[in-house]
Amino acid sequence: MSASWSTSLLTDMYELTMVDAALKSRTAERRSVFELFGRRLPDSRRFGVVAGTGRILEALQRFEFTPEDIDYLHKHKIVSDDAIDYFRDYRFTGDIWGYREGDVYFKHSPLMTVESTFAEACLLETVLLSILNHDCAVASAASRMTIAAHKRPCFDMGARRTHERAGVSAARASMIGGFAGTSNLEAGKRYGIRTIGTSAHSFTLLHDSEEAAFKAQIDSLGPGTTLLVDTYDIPEGVERAVAAARAAGAELGAVRIDSGDLVAQAFKVRGQLDRLGAKSTKITVTSDLDEYAIAALGAAPVDSYGVGTKLVTGSGIPTAALVYKLVERVGADGKMEGVAKASKSKSTIAGRKWAARVYDEEGYAAEERLYVGSYDEFSQVLQKEQDRGITITPRQRKMVSDGVIDEQWIGPEAVVRGAELHKEIRAKLPYAAWHLSEGEPAIETRVIELPSANPAK
Amino acid sequence: MSASWSTSLLTDMYELTMVDAALKSRTAERRSVFELFGRRLPDSRRFGVVAGTGRILEALQRFEFTPEDIDYLHKHKIVSDDAIDYFRDYRFTGDIWGYREGDVYFKHSPLMTVESTFAEACLLETVLLSILNHDCAVASAASRMTIAAHKRPCFDMGARRTHERAGVSAARASMIGGFAGTSNLEAGKRYGIRTIGTSAHSFTLLHDSEEAAFKAQIDSLGPGTTLLVDTYDIPEGVERAVAAARAAGAELGAVRIDSGDLVAQAFKVRGQLDRLGAKSTKITVTSDLDEYAIAALGAAPVDSYGVGTKLVTGSGIPTAALVYKLVERVGADGKMEGVAKASKSKSTIAGRKWAARVYDEEGYAAEERLYVGSYDEFSQVLQKEQDRGITITPRQRKMVSDGVIDEQWIGPEAVVRGAELHKEIRAKLPYAAWHLSEGEPAIETRVIELPSANPAK
Repeated sequence: MSASWSTSLLTDMYELTMVDAALKSRTAERRSVFELFGRRLPDSRRFGVVAGTGRILEALQRFEFTPEDIDYLHKHKIVSDDAIDYFRDYRFTGDIWGYREGDVYFKHSPLMTVESTFAEACLLETVLLSILNHDCAVASAASRMTIAAHKRPCFDMGARRTHERAGVSAARASMIGGFAGTSNLEAGKRYGIRTIGTSAHSFTLLHDSEEAAFKAQIDSLGPGTTLLVDTYDIPEGVERAVAAARAAGAELGAVRIDSGDLVAQAFKVRGQLDRLGAKSTKITVTSDLDEYAIAALGAAPVDSYGVGTKLVTGSGIPTAALVYKLVERVGADGKMEGVAKASKSKSTIAGRKWAARVYDEEGYAAEERLYVGSYDEFSQVLQKEQDRGITITPRQRKMVSDGVIDEQWIGPEAVVRGAELHKEIRAKLPYAAWHLSEGEPAIETRVIELPSANPAK
Repeated sequence: MSASWSTSLLTDMYELTMVDAALKSRTAERRSVFELFGRRLPDSRRFGVVAGTGRILEALQRFEFTPEDIDYLHKHKIVSDDAIDYFRDYRFTGDIWGYREGDVYFKHSPLMTVESTFAEACLLETVLLSILNHDCAVASAASRMTIAAHKRPCFDMGARRTHERAGVSAARASMIGGFAGTSNLEAGKRYGIRTIGTSAHSFTLLHDSEEAAFKAQIDSLGPGTTLLVDTYDIPEGVERAVAAARAAGAELGAVRIDSGDLVAQAFKVRGQLDRLGAKSTKITVTSDLDEYAIAALGAAPVDSYGVGTKLVTGSGIPTAALVYKLVERVGADGKMEGVAKASKSKSTIAGRKWAARVYDEEGYAAEERLYVGSYDEFSQVLQKEQDRGITITPRQRKMVSDGVIDEQWIGPEAVVRGAELHKEIRAKLPYAAWHLSEGEPAIETRVIELPSANPAK
């Protein structure tokens, strides 16, 4: 039970052995700044969607080494006894700044910045990356799908196509990306998300006839339910479905189509429903949808989409490829210093970055700016730009101060707020952001060094 | 805490509402057989690898509705009070047969067969699919990578590139696919898997010089450790690394290269190490590897591979696309009857299937046979074939009897046994199975109806 409770071992071993070595070399306590960002947006993505921040803060609440964890580390000699003493008392006491859930991000946007001792920040690396790499990938796919769906609601039905716990987080991330509900009950329970559902072919096959199955479902869920009409023959299924609802005294809520050519089927079924007089009965479709299939269904008489595989696997991009890098730390001389690695194809930009977004006269996002330097100077620059009439807003919020989590960023409310924010922010992206095709990020990222920047050593 | 303990709500809502409706229509208690299988192998896969069975049985042990779960269902009126009474007492009491972890599978192979009442089997659908769809995808990718790596060890370093809990399961699945260890500590703790690790660029950057960082790591982990040599300049890094180990009185264990052209780097670094006399120092590489990159490194002087993203995301196929279908159930007449849906492109084959694999004279797998019919008749056919000199072996084992789990299939030992079985079974696949290119399954699946088959109604 405790195995699944603490989050501290959801971690690469090297985070612990590095801390162990740094304790010995007396560098573990050096003030450090780590940034979490993507070197580029994955192919085809015009923007990324921030999701998972709330889950990170929840994981942070449970990031401690339980006696069972300590036993494991000790028994397998993963680290020295000194390090074990350190882990036993570990609690994060630093600051974390982050982009809000629902915001969008671009190349090098610092989605999260961790300021603390090296040891404290190092230990968090793996779990921070795991959560954001997963949740941002799903939310980004979800946002593309809800763009393609225009105002028609999309529902997450992907639980069965991904790891059982990832499915719960995917439901949460999909809501931030604009989805309207999920089939996942744990997500409903944990995050207060609206749950939805129809029925499976097995339910029809269980009964002695399709009529009996439809009657059973309507007896239980009422005629407003959604009946699955493609177990045998769709036209017969539709006719039986409408009749079964009417026998219960009302028009059927909806039919679901889960196979075949969905565009053609939708037109046929809509026609049949209309001829039967069931004009209020809706059509939901669910077979292997992604943003392109949804876009192709745009002109078809479909009322909602149930999305599985492609949502929970990030529609071709199952991980957001975000990294977590040390950009500043105190040196032997006691001064804060920017640091960067020079590795070919994986170089980083030294120094703490403060992110801001510039909007054009029409209110559309125009540029992502990363100012390298001190917070004070960043604030002054922002003020100056605003005084010049430029609309520019900072992206990060301080979410953890001296180890204390600001609770507005966690719990079910954070999901609702993230979904609202995303809607608002997405509406202000330039038109290029709405393209489903592969291409450049919707806006450019510009790195600006302020005089206070800590130069790389 | 209990939120993450029970597994019953890791489930699509419709499983519960179907049971609710079936309780009302008095079909919930009908004896049913569900099969879990893939309609086809995903593109490019010559075989699939079974993994996750042990996790399913562990999830089954915790598949119960806690008071908190019941409260949620009640408060949100997900189901009726009668159904809630049923869920409150729910424990699975049926039988489950399955392919062993480490076995391979092909088109329509019934990886798992659940025999119970409709209600009991229906409730398990989502969690069974989630676990197998994830774990089989990872194990299948792992097996392709270990084929490409020949005897060189592969290590899982993917935790940060997938959901934090999926990473633990991915480590487990990768071991079944032939990996030699993982960076994931929770996987080490929970499944007894060997954990490994090197260090990150941040560790080097934390220190005032590369020399200081190398010294710190060796002071802590000994000269047998693996030093990361590409933070600044690789030739300088290698020289410093070797010197740092020698200063501690021994030859360096290994160097890690994490960027650039890995083939070229490996040759250069090997040459340099040899010139320095560090002939025993090994080389591990880790940058964005998949089975193709590993194959390309086959001729390079590399000693081991650290694999991240592509492993945990199934190397292009993040979900195994397995489905769970009702194939037989008792009808109104009290007789067991095969059932199948006719939906275009998604039709199923009625009747319970017993799987067997035929081997040719040289001992290589030649055909996957699915016999539709009774167990007794299947056993007789097998005996007859064996009497004729044909090597044919049944694939499924009975893992749950009347709700009681056979414990040999769970816990850390199951992982070790799965890895051994996979090695053994993979060695007996025909040569086509070893192709990394896209193509047909390594062996054909043949469905054979026995006289005792329950025909579809």
